[in-house]
Amino acid sequence: MLSLKHLAINSFNENLAYIHRKCTAYNVDEIKMLTKVEIHGGVKPIYAFLQITDDSSLVKPNELALNNEAFEQIDLPQGANVSLAISPPPASLSSVRRKIAGNILNGGEYNAIINDIASRRYSNMDIASFLVSSGSFMTAPEVLSLTEALIGNYTFSWDKENIVVDHHCLGGVPGNKTDIIITAIVAAYGLPIPKTSSRSLTSCAGVADTFSVLANVDLDESKFRSVLNECRGVIANYDTLPIAEANKIISSVERYLGLTDHQQLVSSILAIKLAAGVTHLVLDIPVGPNSRVKSTTEAMRIRKLAEYVGDMLSMEIDAVITDGSEPIGNGVGAVLEARDVMKVLRNKEDAPQDLLEKSLFLAGRILEFDPKLRGGQGYHVAKELLVSGRALETMNKIIYAQGKSSQPQLGSLTRDIISPISGIVESINNQRINKIGVLAGATQYHGAGLDLFKKVGDYVEQGETLYRIYSANSEDFAFANSAVDGNMGYEITNKSSY
Amino acid sequence: MLSLKHLAINSFNENLAYIHRKCTAYNVDEIKMLTKVEIHGGVKPIYAFLQITDDSSLVKPNELALNNEAFEQIDLPQGANVSLAISPPPASLSSVRRKIAGNILNGGEYNAIINDIASRRYSNMDIASFLVSSGSFMTAPEVLSLTEALIGNYTFSWDKENIVVDHHCLGGVPGNKTDIIITAIVAAYGLPIPKTSSRSLTSCAGVADTFSVLANVDLDESKFRSVLNECRGVIANYDTLPIAEANKIISSVERYLGLTDHQQLVSSILAIKLAAGVTHLVLDIPVGPNSRVKSTTEAMRIRKLAEYVGDMLSMEIDAVITDGSEPIGNGVGAVLEARDVMKVLRNKEDAPQDLLEKSLFLAGRILEFDPKLRGGQGYHVAKELLVSGRALETMNKIIYAQGKSSQPQLGSLTRDIISPISGIVESINNQRINKIGVLAGATQYHGAGLDLFKKVGDYVEQGETLYRIYSANSEDFAFANSAVDGNMGYEITNKSSY
Repeated sequence: MLSLKHLAINSFNENLAYIHRKCTAYNVDEIKMLTKVEIHGGVKPIYAFLQITDDSSLVKPNELALNNEAFEQIDLPQGANVSLAISPPPASLSSVRRKIAGNILNGGEYNAIINDIASRRYSNMDIASFLVSSGSFMTAPEVLSLTEALIGNYTFSWDKENIVVDHHCLGGVPGNKTDIIITAIVAAYGLPIPKTSSRSLTSCAGVADTFSVLANVDLDESKFRSVLNECRGVIANYDTLPIAEANKIISSVERYLGLTDHQQLVSSILAIKLAAGVTHLVLDIPVGPNSRVKSTTEAMRIRKLAEYVGDMLSMEIDAVITDGSEPIGNGVGAVLEARDVMKVLRNKEDAPQDLLEKSLFLAGRILEFDPKLRGGQGYHVAKELLVSGRALETMNKIIYAQGKSSQPQLGSLTRDIISPISGIVESINNQRINKIGVLAGATQYHGAGLDLFKKVGDYVEQGETLYRIYSANSEDFAFANSAVDGNMGYEITNKSSY
Repeated sequence: MLSLKHLAINSFNENLAYIHRKCTAYNVDEIKMLTKVEIHGGVKPIYAFLQITDDSSLVKPNELALNNEAFEQIDLPQGANVSLAISPPPASLSSVRRKIAGNILNGGEYNAIINDIASRRYSNMDIASFLVSSGSFMTAPEVLSLTEALIGNYTFSWDKENIVVDHHCLGGVPGNKTDIIITAIVAAYGLPIPKTSSRSLTSCAGVADTFSVLANVDLDESKFRSVLNECRGVIANYDTLPIAEANKIISSVERYLGLTDHQQLVSSILAIKLAAGVTHLVLDIPVGPNSRVKSTTEAMRIRKLAEYVGDMLSMEIDAVITDGSEPIGNGVGAVLEARDVMKVLRNKEDAPQDLLEKSLFLAGRILEFDPKLRGGQGYHVAKELLVSGRALETMNKIIYAQGKSSQPQLGSLTRDIISPISGIVESINNQRINKIGVLAGATQYHGAGLDLFKKVGDYVEQGETLYRIYSANSEDFAFANSAVDGNMGYEITNKSSY
């Protein structure tokens, strides 16, 4: 028996257990490599990876220490009696090895893998090898199996509703925050839209980041439920909801490794939406040379795959291939994007027209899920809801219900990027704009980002400002500046060259 | 600037850096996922992964703590001034992503990947994704590139020698300790044989484990050199030699994940042998239904691949496909295997004949690398060296030069596994025997293992002992016993059924 201790170390998703080299309950000489252990004493055994220390001030020989992740899971007080046993590798790892060897796995195997990931029996290495082995090497039925497994144990069911809608964009286009506008319009119409979205790790801002500028997004399940029931719309951070837990762990590894495989993306998106109780989904697939999806062929493959999985799991999917050739709206970064969104909802004259039109188009597609609506009327109804101010009214109601947030300031360090010549903006590189924004600090500071004054097709005078960078600290500002100096992400064509 | 602290935590190959959540030199709010950092202050920056703590007794806000792996590498005293910077992901990770996407990488890319792994810029997750993406998806030139990269910076060169020989067995056959006997014979003949071998992590005993029962195997480079020069043979633990460092890191991940891909295996073996200065290698590929290599087709692919890489890197390779259908010798586990080896070298009557014959055969192949030896004479010369006692004499000289070890005892817990019927031993399952031995504790305790009294083709009476299990502690003993009760690994055919 060992005495439980908490070492307040945060290790990014892995449960770690620390024992002393002279541990009284375990022969450390036996340990030659990363070792999985089971820790008994709580309601259920928990799984962790062993770290050995020689320092008695960290862990005494009669103690077992757990990091934050594991200590939270074991749910016992410090000083509780716990015991340690070597854990046999989870049986599902043999399925991962079969996948590495190029085999097709069945539903039971995907289920077992995902369950073991959810109960933290996989190290990040194990998860990485599962993701790399299955990435791009999955049949459509395997994607279906993975999706079913990822849904997990907790799903929202909206008993009184026949149709529960949502919209999801595959991403890759900076500034593309149609989601918030769509939610306002659709909820104003009366269709329930329980939107789940993520905070960004690799782009300038996720929908949850942008909406967090306006309202609290870290909702628990009861708040998620009550806001939807009250307002017909809710926009929550998926990470704080108790759904699709294994997917959260998988996503963190996937993003760390920079994996961008479409099959896992489709599984992940559909599993979250199914767990949120969505029955009808508009899937926006922006295509562009510098977007996430590069060609319509690729987009079509994603569409077919999503439709197949949706059909098998009784979710109606309307997959729309859209223009992803340049950023949408003017703001890139949470505060600037929230500004654009509110301009549209407030019918401001200087509201970005591309963001407005795309939102109306997609909201219209969602409204047409309603059997009572006459075919082809969706766009017009959406526009009426926006122009009349009813969408804004609904948005304000949602913000109030979720809790208004104290809006962060724009970064105080700014630089105007000016055009070196007079001419037409020929193209704007999404990836470059995103990179400059990320370097400016947008992923971390909601007030950092880029404000784009010129878009593709605009005429620009030599010396006129193309966009403005906002940073919150000088280190980020310097990174962004040197990136701009390397490639500012805009291509300007001198008119005389035509 | 932060003050350096050492946290004596062993984390299995990863450099970890711990900072306080209120770190004075770094804004922890920025950190959303596993973050690579560069730590400056030493001769060269070192790379580590950040762990965040709230506990000032571990790390104060003005301190930066490193685990054992990282502290050793930075080579600074505690209290030294260090600074922290976010490390851009190593550029070679984009090659890993290209490999994940199915591309062929060039030599420069393999070099960059392996250099970054050697300098610990890859997390175990990154290494796992590299291994899984390249496993079974490498062209022969890629295997060549990987081999060249794995050799690393330090290689032994034996200036006065024209021929430097070695033998390596691909494994999968319990008890197969021909290496030690071969080394004694070849060194007695006079060809230099600088043998590097590993301690086992997944089988009952590696050559380094077995030889460590007889002599010290943890040699540094100067000892390795001096023993070879003095005795013409040396048997060292590869891990303690400063060669093929990246391969050590890769192997630990590979073994943890249970990857058994042949291309990486060939690269790894040949890189180590090349770094040890070997010019002529006999590669033993045992084939059997329960061996590592299951078919002669597979063995032939490995042979051709090894020959190709060897030709390109000027190493003469004689790849021999051998019978891997059952264990070799009687002992399985370091102490028992060392006993078998010494019986052979001492020309004992009860020496295992299969081990004896296989050793002579392989030693003979090595001797034939000598241009002075008449073709076809190798086996006979090897036998003469063994029977005359000159191999034993050389072995004793090597043991004395490396340092005699205090021989560990056999485990005190034993069980005889008896035959349920009278009949002929039809087959012995290598994998099962290895598993029972590992469960009995053989990987950890050199005195644990199995002693096989009956081999394939032997007649056995009902109730007669097939083999004996040795364990050093009751937990292992119980595991091994229950494994035997499930499947004892022997198939006995009743004679009357013929």
